[in-house]
Amino acid sequence: MVIARVLPFELGKAVIMNKSDAEDLGLMEGDRIRICRGKMFCTAELQTTIGFVKKGEVAFPTHLADVISIKDGDEVEISPIPKPESVSFIKKKMDGEKLSKDEISSVISDITNQSLSSIELTAFVLSNLIRGMDLDEIEWMTKAMIDTGERITFERGTVVGKHSIGGVPGNKTALILVPIIAASGLLIPKTASRAITSATGTADTFEVLANVNLSVDEIKEITERVGGVIAWGGATQLAPADDHIIRVEYPLSIDPKPQLLASVMAKKGSVGAKHVVIDIPVGEGSKVPDVDIGRELANNFVELGRRLGLNVFCALSSGGQPVGRAIGPALEAKEALKTLEERKGSSSLIEKSLGLAGILLEMAGRSSNGYEDAKRIFTSGKALEKMKEIIEAQGGEIFSSKDVLVGDKTYTLKSKKEGAVEAVFNKTLVKIARAAGAPKDKGAGVYIHKKRGEVVKEGDAIITIYAEKEWKLDNAIDIALQEPAVEITGMILEKFPSVRYFEV
Amino acid sequence: MVIARVLPFELGKAVIMNKSDAEDLGLMEGDRIRICRGKMFCTAELQTTIGFVKKGEVAFPTHLADVISIKDGDEVEISPIPKPESVSFIKKKMDGEKLSKDEISSVISDITNQSLSSIELTAFVLSNLIRGMDLDEIEWMTKAMIDTGERITFERGTVVGKHSIGGVPGNKTALILVPIIAASGLLIPKTASRAITSATGTADTFEVLANVNLSVDEIKEITERVGGVIAWGGATQLAPADDHIIRVEYPLSIDPKPQLLASVMAKKGSVGAKHVVIDIPVGEGSKVPDVDIGRELANNFVELGRRLGLNVFCALSSGGQPVGRAIGPALEAKEALKTLEERKGSSSLIEKSLGLAGILLEMAGRSSNGYEDAKRIFTSGKALEKMKEIIEAQGGEIFSSKDVLVGDKTYTLKSKKEGAVEAVFNKTLVKIARAAGAPKDKGAGVYIHKKRGEVVKEGDAIITIYAEKEWKLDNAIDIALQEPAVEITGMILEKFPSVRYFEV
Repeated sequence: MVIARVLPFELGKAVIMNKSDAEDLGLMEGDRIRICRGKMFCTAELQTTIGFVKKGEVAFPTHLADVISIKDGDEVEISPIPKPESVSFIKKKMDGEKLSKDEISSVISDITNQSLSSIELTAFVLSNLIRGMDLDEIEWMTKAMIDTGERITFERGTVVGKHSIGGVPGNKTALILVPIIAASGLLIPKTASRAITSATGTADTFEVLANVNLSVDEIKEITERVGGVIAWGGATQLAPADDHIIRVEYPLSIDPKPQLLASVMAKKGSVGAKHVVIDIPVGEGSKVPDVDIGRELANNFVELGRRLGLNVFCALSSGGQPVGRAIGPALEAKEALKTLEERKGSSSLIEKSLGLAGILLEMAGRSSNGYEDAKRIFTSGKALEKMKEIIEAQGGEIFSSKDVLVGDKTYTLKSKKEGAVEAVFNKTLVKIARAAGAPKDKGAGVYIHKKRGEVVKEGDAIITIYAEKEWKLDNAIDIALQEPAVEITGMILEKFPSVRYFEV
Repeated sequence: MVIARVLPFELGKAVIMNKSDAEDLGLMEGDRIRICRGKMFCTAELQTTIGFVKKGEVAFPTHLADVISIKDGDEVEISPIPKPESVSFIKKKMDGEKLSKDEISSVISDITNQSLSSIELTAFVLSNLIRGMDLDEIEWMTKAMIDTGERITFERGTVVGKHSIGGVPGNKTALILVPIIAASGLLIPKTASRAITSATGTADTFEVLANVNLSVDEIKEITERVGGVIAWGGATQLAPADDHIIRVEYPLSIDPKPQLLASVMAKKGSVGAKHVVIDIPVGEGSKVPDVDIGRELANNFVELGRRLGLNVFCALSSGGQPVGRAIGPALEAKEALKTLEERKGSSSLIEKSLGLAGILLEMAGRSSNGYEDAKRIFTSGKALEKMKEIIEAQGGEIFSSKDVLVGDKTYTLKSKKEGAVEAVFNKTLVKIARAAGAPKDKGAGVYIHKKRGEVVKEGDAIITIYAEKEWKLDNAIDIALQEPAVEITGMILEKFPSVRYFEV
């Protein structure tokens, strides 16, 4: 329940004029205008109205009026300003032409300055999706994204990075890998994202344990002191163009390959990483449906790294079902911390984390058998100690998995029959976790008791839903009952249609 | 000079919430939401803000609050609503797939209802531009555009139509053709457009003489009574989807072929035209750069007409320089009326008008030599009489070219040398006319004294600029001095670089 207030509101960089005045100036809705008051000026986007704003007037949002100290009643002058030149480069890409380095720089710079309208930005992202970019263009775009943001230069040490292109739920690998790598003496200033369409992002998950809204200076200081951080990339000004591009990718649920490549590599380039391992989950329900597409993407990453002076290694990983068993911020933070504490746990989580950490150790020349060395750091307890140091350095106060609170409203779905798990549906699990409140309600999510290949007896728990609010739990249960998250096949082959496994 | 008022303003269908509240509901900027007050509800697009709207509140624009009678302080409930299904069809087109009839209907219907965000609408238009549509899809889109608007059914008579795809300045052909056709006994309910990027549209030009903001009922009544009208299509609800699509085409200066074809044919189909002639100007500086592209477009129009039950004939016309000599609303209305009065004038205007009118007379079976019969109506004075009837029926009061007022601020550019006109630059002429105030200042525009092939002596007038306001005239002169609108070649071959022909 919210209270309605019929109020003035702020809206980006738009001002409103009467349509007739706009026409007098040869202006149309969406045009860029310059507003001058004496010698001060600002730019804005034009909205037009027929009745609301009187002729001879122009309506400003407060924050824009403040820019040039306009007060109600002041006289201002409005004049059209031409479209940014970059719009013509966007049109070139629309027509399928290759852009030059300068043209791409101009587009990225205007995206960063917010000089493009959402129509123009959409046109750029969509043209990249459909027309594609070659590696030259992607290289230039990556460099432009780095150049238009802040950078971190470390005084000492070897900087490495790890990134997962995402798409597989439960992927809390970074929370195991970062402390292992930091404990090895390498520097790993990990910038992570928040969930957009998933149940949690690494930044959301680690936020359960510590503060992730770190400035560039804090990232530098903590990394130099304890070896690693896990920070939210969006809080920094590292390659900020990406944050604007996401705004149009999200409503269309698209992630054009040129943008994916440039966005990952720009963030790594901005922190001066020398060695980067990239996890590409492959499988049904993940971003990369088959191995061939995964290999092509991997080649692109490696080549792009070569051009940017980054040593890149890609690992295609199993993405057909969740990593570990927990999905949702607190559930995942708890599972990761528990795994570090007990030095055992879900093999999909441990093997993946050690495998990727091992690759980084070998890339950086710290080990000839990276997996074994990573395992040694993990089983010795050094990884757990490092994790506690990182949490403390980032202002966290939770150092034990027992102290991680998860939602106290729970519901467990049980199997009505015997069999084995034939399939686990990533997208359904995410849907249930989000309906339960993830990622905003940190304690919300799903715990999966039976994964692919595991034997199920009648009455066995299949999944447990966690929520902080009763009504969200109910919504999540509704989805879980309508859409099975797990497919169980009995001894008798009855794969089609899939069986409803739960007791209502 | 306009007065700034820092005021609440109206903005489409958007409401504003605190970002934190939005996140609690799992909502992001741009998401669609439903707002309920008791049993009443409305839908809106979400904007988020960090500081402006307090937590627990939501800011409404007045007109949206009125929809469900919300008063300041009322309690309302906000819930997310899913994206329209049509967004998934837009994604299909993005991927290059063919859409089905139902899918296209769904997209067009959501465009008409304004259910799509500008990002989604841009994605649709851009996908059509890059991926294209086959004729099945264009046929379905045209039908959907007709079905989502009003239609006119005439009780008696044969309805015909004329359309120019545009791109050539000075094209006041409709003002000669419509009275000829109406005088022949056929019905021609011409819906015309206003200028978007040009110096004047047919609707802007005819508005100098009469009211063009006619309702569907008025178009029907006047056409049945006097045989023809020239009305602004945008004032009607004939195929209104088009008006929304133009909103994203304009800022990107694009006109995807599927949209061009569907938009023209939907307007003609909505008024029940049986025979339609389509003028395709070809030449440098027009929309269609060469004859091959023109022929392909013509074939598409004819085939689309066949599928829709419209008899279509296309004429490729000379588009490399203006039609007639006047550019701008009043200048063009004056030239057209004078041509009807004197039964002579610019041959490019007369020949084109008689040629197109003749085609229509033959298509409708009214003539075996259409050109000659059109000429007879023109030279007999019947066309002028009919023009006066149409002006009167549309509430106009100007019946003589002498009474058409043009801008009293003028400037004539004269040649500094002898030679012949080698080229006339359409785009520059339009730029000058718009700078002078066209189309908003009806009296503004350009008159071109010397066209291609014409001999020029030193001191001869080349163009005259007309304006209503001194400062606009100055702007237009600046452009004309910087960028020649006409290229003159002397007896000595000195085509490169082109010569500045004017006296400053």
